[in-house]
Amino acid sequence: MPGKVHIVGAGPGAAELLTVKAASLLRKADVVLHDDLVPQEILDLIAPAAEVINVGKRCGRHSTSQQQINTLMVESARRHGCIVRLKSGDPAIFGRLGEELDALREAAIPFEVVPGVTAAMTAAAAAGFALTDRRAASALIMLTAHNCRGQSLSRMLLDPEQSTYAIYMPGPDYAATAHELLHLGLDPSTPCALVSNAGRRRQQVKFLSLHDLESVGAVAAPALLVVGKVVRSVDCADPAYFLEDIYELSNQHSAISVQPAISAG
Amino acid sequence: MPGKVHIVGAGPGAAELLTVKAASLLRKADVVLHDDLVPQEILDLIAPAAEVINVGKRCGRHSTSQQQINTLMVESARRHGCIVRLKSGDPAIFGRLGEELDALREAAIPFEVVPGVTAAMTAAAAAGFALTDRRAASALIMLTAHNCRGQSLSRMLLDPEQSTYAIYMPGPDYAATAHELLHLGLDPSTPCALVSNAGRRRQQVKFLSLHDLESVGAVAAPALLVVGKVVRSVDCADPAYFLEDIYELSNQHSAISVQPAISAG
Repeated sequence: MPGKVHIVGAGPGAAELLTVKAASLLRKADVVLHDDLVPQEILDLIAPAAEVINVGKRCGRHSTSQQQINTLMVESARRHGCIVRLKSGDPAIFGRLGEELDALREAAIPFEVVPGVTAAMTAAAAAGFALTDRRAASALIMLTAHNCRGQSLSRMLLDPEQSTYAIYMPGPDYAATAHELLHLGLDPSTPCALVSNAGRRRQQVKFLSLHDLESVGAVAAPALLVVGKVVRSVDCADPAYFLEDIYELSNQHSAISVQPAISAG
Repeated sequence: MPGKVHIVGAGPGAAELLTVKAASLLRKADVVLHDDLVPQEILDLIAPAAEVINVGKRCGRHSTSQQQINTLMVESARRHGCIVRLKSGDPAIFGRLGEELDALREAAIPFEVVPGVTAAMTAAAAAGFALTDRRAASALIMLTAHNCRGQSLSRMLLDPEQSTYAIYMPGPDYAATAHELLHLGLDPSTPCALVSNAGRRRQQVKFLSLHDLESVGAVAAPALLVVGKVVRSVDCADPAYFLEDIYELSNQHSAISVQPAISAG
């Protein structure tokens, strides 16, 4: 029976901006596979006995291929109980999470994704402004300059198939929301995930098509709707264990300290 | 001399998904002004002696106006040392952070924004998919269904003045990035914040116009660029204290526990 791989957002870099859960997982991990960008003050939280591997891919340095990272995750889970794949910021944005999840699913390795604080929110906090403002901006568009090149940014943003939409407060009129997205040019078959109480007790995930979104009834608030080709309804994505783990940790009343665990060696 | 207001992201709701810093601030706050969506398990971390005020604005319930919230923050800071304004998710996205910062600046109250885990990343983690994927989606567009209505979503997305752009990995060719944004239809005077090492040691924020971005030279990585009308270069946004505070806390080696502090009363 293989161990479990926790794909964990390390946040922007300060240990204080880790989630409590990320700090806790780093202390109990048997193996940590981390990005090059994760700073030493975070790596210092890892238990001294753990195996720590820098799998960073950075320009001009020795690097580990995505295939090698996938293999390391799978092989580590076959030998150990608690694996942490530590990714800078939040794992779901510009981090090849999709490819890593595919590898874990293919190898039937249990996994869990732990979200983190992403750079856009950190930069706004640091500079002292809001990213959206009802007086000035209705949407936040996250992209990489890398994607801007090769093709025009305006063309990319005009092609709805090239973006993922995260819709906050999508209800209660889901038919109207679906209609707006269809009007934008999205195909009725576009997959959607409607997540109710994300990261809370009674979290629920419903996978459906944009077409079916039109007839969705009442959904418990707070809800969030994700629309786009990245959404895939897959058997082994079992959201139930996500919160079980959170409450298992909470119930231990475990002391999470930012004090370094001697040395990660 | 007034106290300091910490505008803190509470994350999606589970205490384990608070940042270490948010948990620490809740323990030492004299006054906590919180959104209605913040669950009891997080409020249980607040010290019993603190004054706790629900300033939630929710449909169909008694609510506090934005003006009242602003006044409460300012008046609390005039009477106490450590005020926490606790907002669900991350403060900078769909949370009226801009209006609250304006009120604090106008009253000359020192403030700090502590980023949190936002719902889009939590939903993706829960459902087990990435929000961007080099095989499927190049951008993440965050919006609210509320904004979709009244005007067409496609028209809103086509008007670059109505969105904020968070550009990950914006360098090293800033001229090319600026060119793409100008091509999209943004005015050369559009304000930008170029944040280097956000949430890390040696964090730096540079405010400039899109026109000036074309001639930016080398910037320390990791960098993030925010472009849009929400960006404002203001005197009292002093990013320096942000990291000072982080390291002040780290150096105390304070034990951050998820155990409730008896009761918030």
